[in-house]
Amino acid sequence: MNTINIEDVKEELKIHEKIKIFDTTLRDGEQAPGIALTVDEKIKIAQKLDELGVDTIEMGFPTVSEGERKAARRMVDLGLNSNLCGLARVMKKDIDAVIDSDLSYVHLFIGTSPLHRDYKLKKSKIEILNQAIEAVEYAKDHGLTVEFSAEDATRTELNYLIEFYKGVENAGADIINVPDTVGILVPPTTRDLIRILRKKINVPISLHFHNDFGLAVSNSIIGIEEGASQVHCTINGIGERAGNTSLEELVVSLKIAYGANIAVDTTKLYDTSNFIGSITGIKMPPTKPIVGENAFAHESGIHVDGILKNTSTYEPIPPELVGHKRRIVLGKHTGHAGIKSKLEEFNIEVSPKQFENIYNQVKALGDKGKCITDEDLKSIAITELSTSDKEHIKLLGLNVMTGESVSATATVKLSIEGKVMETSQIGVGPVDASIGAIKSLVKETVDINLDEYRLEAVSGGTDALAETFVVISNKDGHRATGRATREDVIISSVVAVINSINRLLSIEKNS
Amino acid sequence: MNTINIEDVKEELKIHEKIKIFDTTLRDGEQAPGIALTVDEKIKIAQKLDELGVDTIEMGFPTVSEGERKAARRMVDLGLNSNLCGLARVMKKDIDAVIDSDLSYVHLFIGTSPLHRDYKLKKSKIEILNQAIEAVEYAKDHGLTVEFSAEDATRTELNYLIEFYKGVENAGADIINVPDTVGILVPPTTRDLIRILRKKINVPISLHFHNDFGLAVSNSIIGIEEGASQVHCTINGIGERAGNTSLEELVVSLKIAYGANIAVDTTKLYDTSNFIGSITGIKMPPTKPIVGENAFAHESGIHVDGILKNTSTYEPIPPELVGHKRRIVLGKHTGHAGIKSKLEEFNIEVSPKQFENIYNQVKALGDKGKCITDEDLKSIAITELSTSDKEHIKLLGLNVMTGESVSATATVKLSIEGKVMETSQIGVGPVDASIGAIKSLVKETVDINLDEYRLEAVSGGTDALAETFVVISNKDGHRATGRATREDVIISSVVAVINSINRLLSIEKNS
Repeated sequence: MNTINIEDVKEELKIHEKIKIFDTTLRDGEQAPGIALTVDEKIKIAQKLDELGVDTIEMGFPTVSEGERKAARRMVDLGLNSNLCGLARVMKKDIDAVIDSDLSYVHLFIGTSPLHRDYKLKKSKIEILNQAIEAVEYAKDHGLTVEFSAEDATRTELNYLIEFYKGVENAGADIINVPDTVGILVPPTTRDLIRILRKKINVPISLHFHNDFGLAVSNSIIGIEEGASQVHCTINGIGERAGNTSLEELVVSLKIAYGANIAVDTTKLYDTSNFIGSITGIKMPPTKPIVGENAFAHESGIHVDGILKNTSTYEPIPPELVGHKRRIVLGKHTGHAGIKSKLEEFNIEVSPKQFENIYNQVKALGDKGKCITDEDLKSIAITELSTSDKEHIKLLGLNVMTGESVSATATVKLSIEGKVMETSQIGVGPVDASIGAIKSLVKETVDINLDEYRLEAVSGGTDALAETFVVISNKDGHRATGRATREDVIISSVVAVINSINRLLSIEKNS
Repeated sequence: MNTINIEDVKEELKIHEKIKIFDTTLRDGEQAPGIALTVDEKIKIAQKLDELGVDTIEMGFPTVSEGERKAARRMVDLGLNSNLCGLARVMKKDIDAVIDSDLSYVHLFIGTSPLHRDYKLKKSKIEILNQAIEAVEYAKDHGLTVEFSAEDATRTELNYLIEFYKGVENAGADIINVPDTVGILVPPTTRDLIRILRKKINVPISLHFHNDFGLAVSNSIIGIEEGASQVHCTINGIGERAGNTSLEELVVSLKIAYGANIAVDTTKLYDTSNFIGSITGIKMPPTKPIVGENAFAHESGIHVDGILKNTSTYEPIPPELVGHKRRIVLGKHTGHAGIKSKLEEFNIEVSPKQFENIYNQVKALGDKGKCITDEDLKSIAITELSTSDKEHIKLLGLNVMTGESVSATATVKLSIEGKVMETSQIGVGPVDASIGAIKSLVKETVDINLDEYRLEAVSGGTDALAETFVVISNKDGHRATGRATREDVIISSVVAVINSINRLLSIEKNS
């Protein structure tokens, strides 16, 4: 007998030959509290989704504003491979807005559950069905592809739901969509619902599930097992409340674990997720499946050992498959093997005695709760290797002035390899001026470029500590980081830059 | 026919009368890259988990360090209601460490899959089974409760896995645990695996699933449906790679959707999640089910209208059930009803004309991608209400000096209700000095306290914009916020404080 395997049960599953991905990042995703995208941002996202290979992009809700309609028209002009779809209530005005946007695919919806009928719409079952049928007929008369959603389907009486879907199917709807609007489905209710609908409905069935119980992805998979052929997803699962079915989790599960045929290019998932995270401001935690920073990161000593012996020991899929990277992170659980492999990766050779010192420093930092990055380890190792750990550059004096009428001015005095030098410089602010002065002083010794300057958020009061972090590089492409924490944000920035220059000079002398 | 309902399928499900929660936040959670907890933090977390009502707390891996054993003994001394368990390899040394920690419950493990046998352990099937049996016997001889994990169970040949579990069961193990170490299970394979094991094993079955495909919660539920009676969980689902089964999602799904009997007090979930988020530094995104900031937040105009008419229209469970709160967030989708209800909540009465102006300002901010907070709306409304919107306080001049040898010094010149005043002050840094000077100048007019000062992270370079945000209050408890964005971090801070004082004075005059 073999291991438990999907192949053994595949015959019972009614998985379609091709599963379609209907992306609603731009519509349901954008309805998340706090997200509002400009027309240009929507266009950029549509292009990314098209490159990713989703079958359909729900671009928005055209009736809402001229901005939505303009965005739609610009997307149509791009000639994307993905279909473009617009949302519409069952109203002539909304459908006209979709047509006016040059779209040829409409997603119609109306609430069908008792709560929606009685509290929101104040209409009877038959009135709602008739309105839906009229809308489908109007849309079909205008040549649109029609997808129809019975909003809150999962809290609708099953016999009315079937009658409703049969009604819109007979009126000409091309596909029916099943929204679990409030996210109440669980595995067995999902299975039963889609199984029943599959028997009654002839057009394709689409799923639109919400993640309130954390089950949207799994419920979508179960719906696909029961014969649905399309899933509504969003990148990172963003959307109202706990969001929608997460595209990357659904696609990877179905493609990898089920071998399903889906057009999406999985190697673009990591990049697309990061893009959506920064454009919407909703960042994913390190533990997010597939795309989180820790999804392929390993710390524990035992495990890193396993990974090094055979990567599949602790990884379900290779990170390259989703455009991600494996990270070996050092910390309190790190063993010798993890650190050795890192040093080899950096081409740093150390004696057994030096290795022991490096190992102890990593352990000590780990016990303090620090996560040791590659750059940290490199600098620990280089410090250990360098015969002299003297400061190449020392800050002797700093004077900074700023105000409302003149430019910020900084005067900096440094000792550079023993030689005392001093200069002043102006800048847009006091930090800019100070760092400009340092750069000009060290130019003879090392021509640095400030690649990254990060002021970590300071909370709690104006007398809190300001932590600054910089990354610099020289012309040969060597990079070094620097960190400093001071009560004065300007001094903190200056010290961080000087620390980074000292590291860069040590690296230069050792490489 | 009714709506689709769990009651209709409940008879087919083999759900135990009581489902136990085995929390491994302190063991598998702590193995997440970048997390390292101190002994004191571990103790605090154990107390929180005990208050939450989990059945068992896996406190760590006692053999690893004296720190782990000390933490265990201190937890035992607390006399918690939850059981305390320690992890151990199938080695006398590891089991002794558990005993030495005063624990009476051991979680033993050894890898059983071909990958673990061949690459990691380099041992045969029979050697591994014998080592496991010896360990169980040794632990039972010492009076321990024994839970046994076949690591990587889901990639182990099924006949060997059954033989292995039968072996440890016969040796005296009290419960067997099924780790999906690499997170490869999907719904049908989970169902089959647990169904088969349930038929062969007589002791209780526990589940330990990883979230690599985003299916850990759902797979755990399916395992429970098939007769498992315990689930390994972590708060927020933290753990290695994509983490473990999320306790809050699992417990709410099982208790609410299935009516399962679980000891956990759901009203403590939101608080516990936040506690773990801040102690580990792994913050959950707003879209996290159950505990995320958006889990019960609503923005869309249509939806807010629905919520206001009947809260269950767009909420699967009431937020109070998990100790959370409903938030109505205003943004570009916000309709009249959402804003009206907020103003009523604040007891702010406005004329229809004033309402129109407020509504348009909210819409305009929303279109720019801003999320409008309660404070923002309050200040928009108050500004609209105040007959004069003049600046009470104006910045006429600012001069700041800082350096390495003397304290930072700021000279500030203000016009306060038309009167020109000037003073200088020293501080730990230039921002501290400037704000100290402003506070002393305005003291006669309003005695302010700076409750919050936040410098939003500035990335990209030293000439990037620095955005500062402040919250101030006066003695009557009135609060106002201020925001400013400038290239110079000091000027940005000063302008934000002056903005907040102007707002506070407007609020005072209108209340």
